Amino acid sequence: MAKAKTAISPTRAEDYPEWYQQVIKAADMAENSPVRGCMVIKPWGYTLWENIQHVLDQMFKDTGHVNAYFPLFIPKSYLEKEAAHVEGFAKECAVVTHSRLVDDGNGGLKPDSPLEEPLIVRPTSETIIGEMYAKWVQSYRDLPILINQWANVVRWEMRTRLFLRTAEFLWQEGHTVHATAEEAMEETRKMLAVYADFAENYMAMPVICGEKTPGERFPGADHTFSIEAMMQDRKALQAGTSHFLGQNFSKASGIKFQSEAGNEEFAWTTSWGVSTRLIGGLIMTHADDDGLVLPPRLAPSHVVILPVMHKPETAAAVLEYCESLKKELQAQCFAGRRVEVEIDKRDMRGGEKRWSWVKKGVPLIVEAGPRDIENNAVFVARRDTGEKVGLPRAEFVATVAERLQGIQDDMLARAQAHRAENTQTIDTLEDFKAYFTPQNAERPEIHGGFAIAHWGGDAEDEDRLAKEMKVTIRNIPLEGQFGYDGEPGTCIYTGKPSTQRVIFAKSY
Amino acid sequence: MAKAKTAISPTRAEDYPEWYQQVIKAADMAENSPVRGCMVIKPWGYTLWENIQHVLDQMFKDTGHVNAYFPLFIPKSYLEKEAAHVEGFAKECAVVTHSRLVDDGNGGLKPDSPLEEPLIVRPTSETIIGEMYAKWVQSYRDLPILINQWANVVRWEMRTRLFLRTAEFLWQEGHTVHATAEEAMEETRKMLAVYADFAENYMAMPVICGEKTPGERFPGADHTFSIEAMMQDRKALQAGTSHFLGQNFSKASGIKFQSEAGNEEFAWTTSWGVSTRLIGGLIMTHADDDGLVLPPRLAPSHVVILPVMHKPETAAAVLEYCESLKKELQAQCFAGRRVEVEIDKRDMRGGEKRWSWVKKGVPLIVEAGPRDIENNAVFVARRDTGEKVGLPRAEFVATVAERLQGIQDDMLARAQAHRAENTQTIDTLEDFKAYFTPQNAERPEIHGGFAIAHWGGDAEDEDRLAKEMKVTIRNIPLEGQFGYDGEPGTCIYTGKPSTQRVIFAKSY
Ligand SMILES: [Zn+2]
Ligand SMILES: [Zn+2]
Repeated sequence: MAKAKTAISPTRAEDYPEWYQQVIKAADMAENSPVRGCMVIKPWGYTLWENIQHVLDQMFKDTGHVNAYFPLFIPKSYLEKEAAHVEGFAKECAVVTHSRLVDDGNGGLKPDSPLEEPLIVRPTSETIIGEMYAKWVQSYRDLPILINQWANVVRWEMRTRLFLRTAEFLWQEGHTVHATAEEAMEETRKMLAVYADFAENYMAMPVICGEKTPGERFPGADHTFSIEAMMQDRKALQAGTSHFLGQNFSKASGIKFQSEAGNEEFAWTTSWGVSTRLIGGLIMTHADDDGLVLPPRLAPSHVVILPVMHKPETAAAVLEYCESLKKELQAQCFAGRRVEVEIDKRDMRGGEKRWSWVKKGVPLIVEAGPRDIENNAVFVARRDTGEKVGLPRAEFVATVAERLQGIQDDMLARAQAHRAENTQTIDTLEDFKAYFTPQNAERPEIHGGFAIAHWGGDAEDEDRLAKEMKVTIRNIPLEGQFGYDGEPGTCIYTGKPSTQRVIFAKSY
Repeated sequence: MAKAKTAISPTRAEDYPEWYQQVIKAADMAENSPVRGCMVIKPWGYTLWENIQHVLDQMFKDTGHVNAYFPLFIPKSYLEKEAAHVEGFAKECAVVTHSRLVDDGNGGLKPDSPLEEPLIVRPTSETIIGEMYAKWVQSYRDLPILINQWANVVRWEMRTRLFLRTAEFLWQEGHTVHATAEEAMEETRKMLAVYADFAENYMAMPVICGEKTPGERFPGADHTFSIEAMMQDRKALQAGTSHFLGQNFSKASGIKFQSEAGNEEFAWTTSWGVSTRLIGGLIMTHADDDGLVLPPRLAPSHVVILPVMHKPETAAAVLEYCESLKKELQAQCFAGRRVEVEIDKRDMRGGEKRWSWVKKGVPLIVEAGPRDIENNAVFVARRDTGEKVGLPRAEFVATVAERLQGIQDDMLARAQAHRAENTQTIDTLEDFKAYFTPQNAERPEIHGGFAIAHWGGDAEDEDRLAKEMKVTIRNIPLEGQFGYDGEPGTCIYTGKPSTQRVIFAKSY
């Protein structure tokens, strides 16, 4: 039996990690740079990031936040202040030690002018921002501070993968200061909910909101919450985190204020972030063996029109038809944006041209040729399902926004179904082991998916589990979340008592 | 005679450089960070930058450009490739030499894991982007490449001033590749015109488009063009540059392509950028002795409403009046945005509250109290002129956009008049020296302004002039620009023949 032809080789079933790289390459989204671990985000990938930024930024502003910008560099001494933070972040980082290059005498350059104190390229900004906040906060009247920063950060990584793990990445980091623990916790959870809203309603990527176990907390946090998504290979991706930092950073940086009652108190802080990693999650949630599939609400272009111009004598009429169709479509609104339309006039074979847009994941691909003009029709293909349909032009224009929303809804529903199919409630260690043990030794990446099971262990137990089975606790679902179960039980791994079930998975 | 009270002390006349710092402080736009030379851009300053970004980004897209993102780090060897570029940029920069911090045995951290090749934090990205372009460009079909990047860059500076000169700053850098010199030159000039359009029509800051002299070119460029503005102290500010790089960087990076005729050719490249320095220019063009004055088209808020709530019994009614006024105003459009309105409900004295918005430069300050409700009126003050007027509420709402545009136009006109008043055409060295010699030894910063005079010297002559009088050639105006004069003459400094007059000034 002949294998169906796919645009991406290998397919997901053949080699999932390599398929991922090939999808990015085929869509021309990004590539590795000659600078170790740093990627170049190409226009198709960057426009997607701009759309992500645009939506999130509005969500942050709607919840009362403003943007600001803090220095790229952090003095070494700042990283030494918060003990847990040092352990977690001060290790693999880019260290600036010199402020000049001079002639090395061999036609090259060498570092010169050593700095008195080395500077670290920010891996995250709690310490430098905390230093500023300590100056800005005097009284309860100065609170809350609700600031977000869009920035690049650097964490030295040995094994990198485009979007998922790179030495330099782009992100946003929210840093807030509050007068009370309650208010800081409310903020921490509010921003987690914003991330979940964004993931589900824009990325069409269902997520589980939950708390991380103590061993997986952000270094210096009292509580860390995350959103966790299931990729098509059934592994989990942590897509965003929100941290309740207690008074740890306010004590390290000296963020104190005079309370309404006149007492001097340390403030309560939070931080929360998502990054270009979201793009990796989007790809692994929706792309198929023909390449990228973009959720319409974030797609750089919603519709691409391919003029069919086989015969020179009809080419001008076809182009005119396409141009006026584009105008009509762009007069439509979808999810707060104009419907974005491209006409691909490149001089290349029709099949090759069509596939180039399939691989880029544009939601609707429209072909229009001489016969369509005669019938005042269009031929429309949905990228997500491959479904093709001929339609009267006016009907297509009138329904384009509805069709895009339909694709968006179906993409979310499919991702939800995939997660549901590959999630199991498990009550015995035997079943648990079987679930996470690959059936095929040659394809060790194929395993069960998410397990919902009881846990009562400590950080050392978690480490043992991770070493033994490469399985970790993704998070402890919040009430009402997928997988939430408030019932007590017995830990599947240690036999200790458990207060509720948690989400286990292999992960990125 | 009593001195008029001003919100900023010292005034411009008393101490211009210190006035500048105090305006930024009073408007809460930015401050120095504890990291040497790096600033913190606070929300009021950052929102202004966001508005600048938003408008410029649309202008770049309207001229066919797309955004992408390239690595923060540049391998040292890349900077060694283009000889002139090394000289200009490889000197004062942040050098990353290590990728770890480890315990120093004294409770602190020390750099570890030296890099094989040091990395430079980008001072500008021609070399790293050129390296990528060399891979992307094979054929004339791949051209042009029209990419822009929004990024942070670092140039180690010893003497820094907020916005005007900081070690780290934010900017955009356009990098384009073309098949012909003609097309690259057209791009270089097109983007200079975009900058001038932005400066005049959004910042209300008149600029002179011109070419820099050879001695002032960007390191590695064949031609550098700039926009130059006059600040209120009559000094010039270079506000943006656009470079025709010839084949210098394409040869250094190997950007070659097969031409339509089948020959292998080096491509022609350009680069162009503006930065957070624009904010310094905006302040020094428009701020007055009471603080910042924002051009309406870039203002974070267009209108601030101050509810007059002396009497508790009318407070609720006043607030309601203000809220509904805000809604009506926000339903109005100005320059492609919603009219942005804030109501300041803070519990503080009315005078203090009012001055806080004067210092922040909001174009229109509205007061509304019980008597205004009775008359269905508002009391409106223009920030730029201080003019105050009572108006029927409906009339104010209906004319708010027109009033904002009026302020915008008047601000540009005043800046143009200031430049015209302080520009002189000069034909003798004696007059030239007198023009640039401070009249008052105690106020050496006060001098003539712009001089339009003939120049026929070389780079050494320019250096001598700069040392002797602290005066430089800002640029050679393009045809049709302020100060342009196509007539030949005699160089005011060297007596050599000159082809046209140029702009001389002291500068930032
Ligand atoms: Zn907790
Ligand atoms: Zn020239």
